[in-house]
Amino acid sequence: MHAPEGSRSAELPHMAADVLARLRARAPRVHCITNGVAQNFTANMLLAAGAAPSMTISPEEIAQFVAGADALLVNLGTLDRERREAVEIAVAAASQAGKRWVLDPVFIDRAPKRAGFARALMNKHPTALRLNGAEFLALSGAGDDREALMDYARVHSVVVALSGKTDLVGDGARIAAISNGDPLMARVTAMGCAASALVAACVAVENDAWRACAAALLILGVAGEIAAAEAKGPGSFGAAIVDAVFALDGETLMQRAKVS
Amino acid sequence: MHAPEGSRSAELPHMAADVLARLRARAPRVHCITNGVAQNFTANMLLAAGAAPSMTISPEEIAQFVAGADALLVNLGTLDRERREAVEIAVAAASQAGKRWVLDPVFIDRAPKRAGFARALMNKHPTALRLNGAEFLALSGAGDDREALMDYARVHSVVVALSGKTDLVGDGARIAAISNGDPLMARVTAMGCAASALVAACVAVENDAWRACAAALLILGVAGEIAAAEAKGPGSFGAAIVDAVFALDGETLMQRAKVS
Amino acid sequence: MHAPEGSRSAELPHMAADVLARLRARAPRVHCITNGVAQNFTANMLLAAGAAPSMTISPEEIAQFVAGADALLVNLGTLDRERREAVEIAVAAASQAGKRWVLDPVFIDRAPKRAGFARALMNKHPTALRLNGAEFLALSGAGDDREALMDYARVHSVVVALSGKTDLVGDGARIAAISNGDPLMARVTAMGCAASALVAACVAVENDAWRACAAALLILGVAGEIAAAEAKGPGSFGAAIVDAVFALDGETLMQRAKVS
Repeated sequence: MHAPEGSRSAELPHMAADVLARLRARAPRVHCITNGVAQNFTANMLLAAGAAPSMTISPEEIAQFVAGADALLVNLGTLDRERREAVEIAVAAASQAGKRWVLDPVFIDRAPKRAGFARALMNKHPTALRLNGAEFLALSGAGDDREALMDYARVHSVVVALSGKTDLVGDGARIAAISNGDPLMARVTAMGCAASALVAACVAVENDAWRACAAALLILGVAGEIAAAEAKGPGSFGAAIVDAVFALDGETLMQRAKVS
Repeated sequence: MHAPEGSRSAELPHMAADVLARLRARAPRVHCITNGVAQNFTANMLLAAGAAPSMTISPEEIAQFVAGADALLVNLGTLDRERREAVEIAVAAASQAGKRWVLDPVFIDRAPKRAGFARALMNKHPTALRLNGAEFLALSGAGDDREALMDYARVHSVVVALSGKTDLVGDGARIAAISNGDPLMARVTAMGCAASALVAACVAVENDAWRACAAALLILGVAGEIAAAEAKGPGSFGAAIVDAVFALDGETLMQRAKVS
Repeated sequence: MHAPEGSRSAELPHMAADVLARLRARAPRVHCITNGVAQNFTANMLLAAGAAPSMTISPEEIAQFVAGADALLVNLGTLDRERREAVEIAVAAASQAGKRWVLDPVFIDRAPKRAGFARALMNKHPTALRLNGAEFLALSGAGDDREALMDYARVHSVVVALSGKTDLVGDGARIAAISNGDPLMARVTAMGCAASALVAACVAVENDAWRACAAALLILGVAGEIAAAEAKGPGSFGAAIVDAVFALDGETLMQRAKVS
């Protein structure tokens, strides 16, 4: 089952299986600033993967939670005043403690001020950026093709994980294309938010952030395919993909991974 | 399967099937100010119906989201200061842009100040009002019978969609009684909130607001019956009704509709 | 099926069945201050048990909701400024109206300021305290064994409901150990929050708060076992435990209860 070293299409799935095993063994704490729509689903997805979520956005508390966490997720959905304040404090606390953090600039294509805030956050050095094509376009001002992605990753020293029909994960030097997943994933709210939370969990247990990001999207994509075979629609799919992440084993992940 | 023109009991189901097709074809954007209990379920219900939800209540952002949306939902559940401010801004933005909006005055029978706020909002001309009998009584001060409903609709130039064992939809000139649905719908939190969100989606794609409201309640009621046949209780019913809305086709809707 | 009076191992299950019947007959209103992660699941769990939830944390409204409720839940998860203010108002309203309230000091082991707030709240006489071992340790400064629990219960005149592999419920004079439940319960977010909400519902219909707390944890634990037999993982388990609470009958509860 193990592929020769150096073959990307086999190396990443193998690494993803290893990352999944580490999630279960280490149960990394992931502090999530995320929107009210996504909180419950995100927490359940993290628990299913083996991670331990916390969610407070209280300015009085968040620095302590970040200090005690293994990674931070900053999701800009439903970005109200309190969340904005929480983001500032949390990112400062993460930087000070040397913790990795992940940015998900939800809907910045719909909200220019939020896009400005996201651009300012990029200067505070997130480890990874998980977003969709419209959001990447709003953030970068460039196209959403591989070249634009790699340029942006290089300039900002960030791993870009771009969700789409095919997911792209690039760090400026390496790029992976993941074609797992199912159309139902776009019909469940907060699926992208949960993907970003899994990215945060994976960068907590894998030093190579590019591999960590690819592992997170592979895990979710393969789980999505398994769930789609069970589900009768987006309602049951939401529960089934959590079940599938929980039950996923490394062997299945390696067998079903479609990476190029 | 098609009934003669002019027969209300056949005309509305036919129209509802057409509205459902338009939801899928046009994917109207519905901006929702709704309570934290209902956000996730509401977003998933809108996605299942074919609409595209957004949910921010940030005062800095909401006007832009409303301006880019096709309809607005104003749900007064868990009405805190920030939501109240968001409602004022959003309704002003909707009025200015000529967008339709729907009011759901959740629990105003339990909160007199909230009832006063709801009455003030009625002067800002929502297209539709979706609520239950206790809420209608608190809002109108009249009974919750057909006559009171039609009087209120006429005086306020609003379509009233009154949920109950039989749903009533009246605009002051026309009234429809819909007897689809299942008792489990009352055992899942935020079902009424989701109904109001579907009303907002339907008024975005159908000019005749009375027909749009009836279509929304028919879609949800028929989906509720289909889901109840699958579900083992309210937990699985919550997922099953989302599945059923997603899978619903016009033919099934017309066959199962109970309208008089 | 009925056990002899005075045998604790049979008396509590019998009482729990009776409490369950009263929940369905009386539909107690439970006002919940709870975190955004838990709101939806908590509301659905209360509805499944027969209770009627409300959730506002608006300072302008909460006193009225508490005055109209049969019990209050104070859950300290995601404790932001608005929630803290809501707690103060709600607890004062409950005290003034002679309503029982339940404290769930979520994650106080992770947030020292929140622990201080929880200790201050203990001086305002909650009827019951539902928490896990790490939280009890942070609150009491003592161990999390039976003796520490009973000491704490006596000193604070509170029923302590300590969730764990075996749940312990003590009031300083009596203690019950409940060994129902399933490991999947720890893999669904907000399960403890929902347990505390059920405790609040039960203290609304049963004067003996110790019996009420034991009944709540027995109901949830037995439902968890039934759900685990159905579920394919934590996603489907979340829906299945709501179904199981909804469908639970007194006879099954008495047969499956493991109390000592």
